[in-house]
Amino acid sequence: MNAHAWTTTLQVGDGFRLADVDPEATPGYTGGKSRGAKDLAAGLETLGEYQERLFAQSRTGTATDAVLLVLQAMDSAGKGGIVRHVVGGVDPQGVSLTAFKAPTAEEREHDFLWRIEKRLPEPGFIGVFDRSHYEDVLIGRVRALAAPEEIERRYDAINDFEERAAASGIRIVKVMLHISRDEQKARLMERLDRADKHWKYNPGDVDERLRWDDYMAAYQTVFERTSTEVAPWHVIPANRKWYARLAVQELLLGALQDIDPQWPKADFDVEAEKKRLAAS
Amino acid sequence: MNAHAWTTTLQVGDGFRLADVDPEATPGYTGGKSRGAKDLAAGLETLGEYQERLFAQSRTGTATDAVLLVLQAMDSAGKGGIVRHVVGGVDPQGVSLTAFKAPTAEEREHDFLWRIEKRLPEPGFIGVFDRSHYEDVLIGRVRALAAPEEIERRYDAINDFEERAAASGIRIVKVMLHISRDEQKARLMERLDRADKHWKYNPGDVDERLRWDDYMAAYQTVFERTSTEVAPWHVIPANRKWYARLAVQELLLGALQDIDPQWPKADFDVEAEKKRLAAS
Repeated sequence: MNAHAWTTTLQVGDGFRLADVDPEATPGYTGGKSRGAKDLAAGLETLGEYQERLFAQSRTGTATDAVLLVLQAMDSAGKGGIVRHVVGGVDPQGVSLTAFKAPTAEEREHDFLWRIEKRLPEPGFIGVFDRSHYEDVLIGRVRALAAPEEIERRYDAINDFEERAAASGIRIVKVMLHISRDEQKARLMERLDRADKHWKYNPGDVDERLRWDDYMAAYQTVFERTSTEVAPWHVIPANRKWYARLAVQELLLGALQDIDPQWPKADFDVEAEKKRLAAS
Repeated sequence: MNAHAWTTTLQVGDGFRLADVDPEATPGYTGGKSRGAKDLAAGLETLGEYQERLFAQSRTGTATDAVLLVLQAMDSAGKGGIVRHVVGGVDPQGVSLTAFKAPTAEEREHDFLWRIEKRLPEPGFIGVFDRSHYEDVLIGRVRALAAPEEIERRYDAINDFEERAAASGIRIVKVMLHISRDEQKARLMERLDRADKHWKYNPGDVDERLRWDDYMAAYQTVFERTSTEVAPWHVIPANRKWYARLAVQELLLGALQDIDPQWPKADFDVEAEKKRLAAS
């Protein structure tokens, strides 16, 4: 998938080390910030066209494929901005967005994938997971919310789950937005400095931040264990918001171009309908 | 609500007659198409700001209010365009959109409001119903899908339901996009003329079109029976798409200004958090 796009460089491959990724970098992209903004706007047009074709198939019952964007990141890395500025550019009728919070009591009574599976996108839709089943092997591991054997079991369970989802026609685009520890500090400080940003701040954010290295280690394991052929991970340097948005847009475009949805053919007699309509 | 907005003229009041509404008109708005496009773009900014405040409240658990936009119309009147160009302008994280189709077998086993109630927006959200419980007294009546006594019962049930929803904090904005019969014919013909629009056409559209007068009578009854103080109807002339979009945007703005959401106050010690963060 996306074999020719500049985003291939973002894909996690053998020997990948998160520690080697520079969050300030803009790998594969030769333009700067202002060129990036233009490319983002142009890309939204193209993305919208592909998405309309995909959605058209859902309306005529001919859709077999869907796209699922999985967004993971440390706090303040820009997931909300991706949803707003990339996903927000396409017709909301064809988008199904889920923000996963800490599981409810009911959800905790089921397997961790129970609530996830219910939110997989229907054929013809772009699904977006703002956080996901990966929290169950990230905060789940860092905070020891489950026993080590259970965490261990989950990596394979995730791979099986995603393989089945992919086989059912879902193109899975997994993205980790990678910011530096210093950049996070600056962004959280800005939230504290501005009264209109206080709502985005949670004291728990600093608690998690204090375990930064544990999280990076947990992410590294996630990439090693769950970056598969049908559902590879992409680590996107995210200190520069404009770059991260452009990269995610390009990944979505790649998935849609891979599906290459066509306008559904009429399943009715067009000329006969014109006559009926003209006479009505 | 919206006592000073130009959209008050669109509100259904005593003695309202749908037959008197000119679908070509642009009541209350003195600008033309190009001015309308500018006002729409400017309005999106304002709408986005209000919506972010409302959404912020949902994130901090302090939201008590929500907005529900109910969209009803004959085929091709522009519901999709409203969703795309008006609702699509705000952050998708704060929008919950439901397109109601013909009820499933499971849904038909319950009261007609069962599936509706489940989709009411949570506090802090803008909910959008693309079609709604009103189909149960529109196509339900025109196609005699239920007995006359049952249809009769539903008007009161709807009023009770909406009164409860309003009491729970939901500002209900009910909109009928009103196009002329000729305009519908032209729009449906365009869908037949263009291969990339065939997916939007359904032979059943002409079947419903042939019952135009029955639908107008059913709408007239809907307005007489269900335009209440807490949930009034608005009939928006929709032959001019730019006007209809502007009018719906203005109605949404009115509802949000009525709520007047404020940035949530920090429920933590801001200075103490700055110190914790700085030391982290």
